[in-house]
Amino acid sequence: MSIEDIIAANKNFSNTTGKTEKPVITAIADGVCAPKGFLAAGVRCRIKKTPDKKDLALIFCRVSCNAAAVYTKNKVKAAPIYVDMQHLRDGKAQAILANSGNANACAPNGEENAEKMSAYAAAALGISPKDVIVASTGVIGVELEIAKIEEAMPALAKALSPKGSHDAALAIMTSDTYEKEYAVSVEIGNKIVKIGGISKGSGMIHPNMGTTLNFITTDVDITQELLQKALNDCVKKSFNRISVDGDTSTNDMACILADGLAANPVISSEKSEAYLAFKEALEVLCIHLAKELARDGEGASRLITCTMNGASTEEKAEIMAKSVISSNLTKAAMFGCDANWGRILCAMGYSGADFDYEKTQVYFRSAAGEIQVCENGRGLAFDEELAKKILSEEEVEIFVDLNEGTETAVAWGCDLTYDYVKINGDYRS
Amino acid sequence: MSIEDIIAANKNFSNTTGKTEKPVITAIADGVCAPKGFLAAGVRCRIKKTPDKKDLALIFCRVSCNAAAVYTKNKVKAAPIYVDMQHLRDGKAQAILANSGNANACAPNGEENAEKMSAYAAAALGISPKDVIVASTGVIGVELEIAKIEEAMPALAKALSPKGSHDAALAIMTSDTYEKEYAVSVEIGNKIVKIGGISKGSGMIHPNMGTTLNFITTDVDITQELLQKALNDCVKKSFNRISVDGDTSTNDMACILADGLAANPVISSEKSEAYLAFKEALEVLCIHLAKELARDGEGASRLITCTMNGASTEEKAEIMAKSVISSNLTKAAMFGCDANWGRILCAMGYSGADFDYEKTQVYFRSAAGEIQVCENGRGLAFDEELAKKILSEEEVEIFVDLNEGTETAVAWGCDLTYDYVKINGDYRS
Repeated sequence: MSIEDIIAANKNFSNTTGKTEKPVITAIADGVCAPKGFLAAGVRCRIKKTPDKKDLALIFCRVSCNAAAVYTKNKVKAAPIYVDMQHLRDGKAQAILANSGNANACAPNGEENAEKMSAYAAAALGISPKDVIVASTGVIGVELEIAKIEEAMPALAKALSPKGSHDAALAIMTSDTYEKEYAVSVEIGNKIVKIGGISKGSGMIHPNMGTTLNFITTDVDITQELLQKALNDCVKKSFNRISVDGDTSTNDMACILADGLAANPVISSEKSEAYLAFKEALEVLCIHLAKELARDGEGASRLITCTMNGASTEEKAEIMAKSVISSNLTKAAMFGCDANWGRILCAMGYSGADFDYEKTQVYFRSAAGEIQVCENGRGLAFDEELAKKILSEEEVEIFVDLNEGTETAVAWGCDLTYDYVKINGDYRS
Repeated sequence: MSIEDIIAANKNFSNTTGKTEKPVITAIADGVCAPKGFLAAGVRCRIKKTPDKKDLALIFCRVSCNAAAVYTKNKVKAAPIYVDMQHLRDGKAQAILANSGNANACAPNGEENAEKMSAYAAAALGISPKDVIVASTGVIGVELEIAKIEEAMPALAKALSPKGSHDAALAIMTSDTYEKEYAVSVEIGNKIVKIGGISKGSGMIHPNMGTTLNFITTDVDITQELLQKALNDCVKKSFNRISVDGDTSTNDMACILADGLAANPVISSEKSEAYLAFKEALEVLCIHLAKELARDGEGASRLITCTMNGASTEEKAEIMAKSVISSNLTKAAMFGCDANWGRILCAMGYSGADFDYEKTQVYFRSAAGEIQVCENGRGLAFDEELAKKILSEEEVEIFVDLNEGTETAVAWGCDLTYDYVKINGDYRS
């Protein structure tokens, strides 16, 4: 059976359960500045050692926003995380200030410097320091050069612009090779609602967030409680479904500001169609950014998608899909375009999830075609040359059918390359 | 405070708890053939594609042995594992037959071929097939060429010799760059008891065993129950404390045969001094072999030891030590001789164990000296040149003091190198 046939069989089953029609979600320009009311900027303040690289980003909203965030699960948290937890207690914020080049984690005067970042931004923007979310990313254990941020703040505030999303996306990059920004629109209650986001990777990335910073803006009108709930649910299916190297960072966070300027009837019930449409659009945005983070993983030469189909529960499918894309051996095989499917079964086997490998099918798929390599847990004689061709593409899917049920989960990762080792052998210099 | 001072302070505390004197354990020659009664051999049967490489090993005891084993925790287990579980139900065995080059996992006719291996060995040795332990290691998903094993069996049995441990150690290697064998002696009840072992690595290695095969022989007289208990306890502190790449194999096992020919009074109480002396010697042997597996991890250029000192419980110390030596980012930094201690704290933080990082000290130590890089969770200004010199040695220790209690755990790993990626990018060819 082809992958499409398997998916179709699953979809037919799902349709009988009576789902409503999907909202139309459209990709739009301008990243975090796409939603009404938001401005952004990115400048160089010289914390990054590389010349000419921007390293200080600011996102600002003309009005006060409902705000929600999720943070790293690492027991060792960077100072800005603790400061943000305090600042977001009232569920309100109006600006995000982030630097790259220094993580302000395990560093002298950490919380003091993170509070100073808030204070400098607040003074430049004429708002309360409690309404500023701060974030840092870069090397751990070195004191933040806070004077450089103070010095750059007037120029940063002055640079705020409705076209500034791209600069902000550049300024939060560390070892990322390109900036990540995206925006979508969706109709809710006869109004056009927009959601925009910028993200950075690209190492120390693992299911519980990784060194990812994800800043999202939206003009939807929604209660703070439902904004937090939508963010939690979407992060679970996007940023928590990627892995670059198995290391969960001290600094990860995703946050969202919602200013309500789209003027839709306020979303206050999680059963409403409006909520479901907003969540669907937010999920599309988060998955897009998450895939970009995986694709641009340190040293990566290709994006690996693992689809775990036909599971009895989504949780089990998720555990196994994450285990596959996290396996160093599978990742190295993908780098070598080697159809070593035994490592995929092996990674599913040590994931902790229970399954019957003798009912398991494994396929590889890409723009160059698809090929089944394992049937009912046993090796198939397959065309090695076709397999190599399929695995040589820039986007490769590992499709596993468990033949146990109708649940599916998708996870994203990248290959393990010489460059990953090179980049991380001497990161601090 | 220096590392020695910290350890001394801990030892002084331990001494007040009234431990008995340690038995004298001496390294001896001849590997698995060191204990009385054991013979071994290794030959080439042409399963491995590389010319001239041995790929079939046999260990045989003149008399029936008490036998114990521990197996991979991977849900996907290779066929020989299932066969061994059956064969060892009576706690007795007399021979071990192992091939390299093919894992006989997820392969057509897996259990049938594993049973055939037992039958061929039994016929050649004149024993019951149920007294043969079988093992396979190599590529997953390809049918075992059982005829080659059948054909080679007479020559293999004929080659059995009290000097055959080295050949057997060579014949179980896959991507190992050198053979691993070791033996120790210890006095128990006025008799000299010997323990010998051979092991193979070297990728797909993670705390729950890895693709490690570990065959251990001893002439101690001990009940089967206590033999199993001693093996379980020692594996926990040795083979389960190493990681090369985070992948737990389908084929891992450690087994031990005890023939009683040392003629010591049978060990039947786990409280006896004799049991404790045997267990101590077995632990020394297992730790030696485990460290060799880590040192020779795929592509490794150095052995990394992580000592987690001053913990409130050994379990917690073990979780964090394993997390550190498993971290790709830490491993890549070790390859680059980069004293990036933030990654160590980060790996401890996401391990799941609870600790107060603001009480944590981090040191690096090797033959070139020692250096403290982190004090109470904060970066210290340290001599980068000295740090680089220390980290350039072939054996490097990451010493962490948690300042919470008196428990310690040690784990071993290796650095992540270009060669790891190269080896695993195209393993099957």
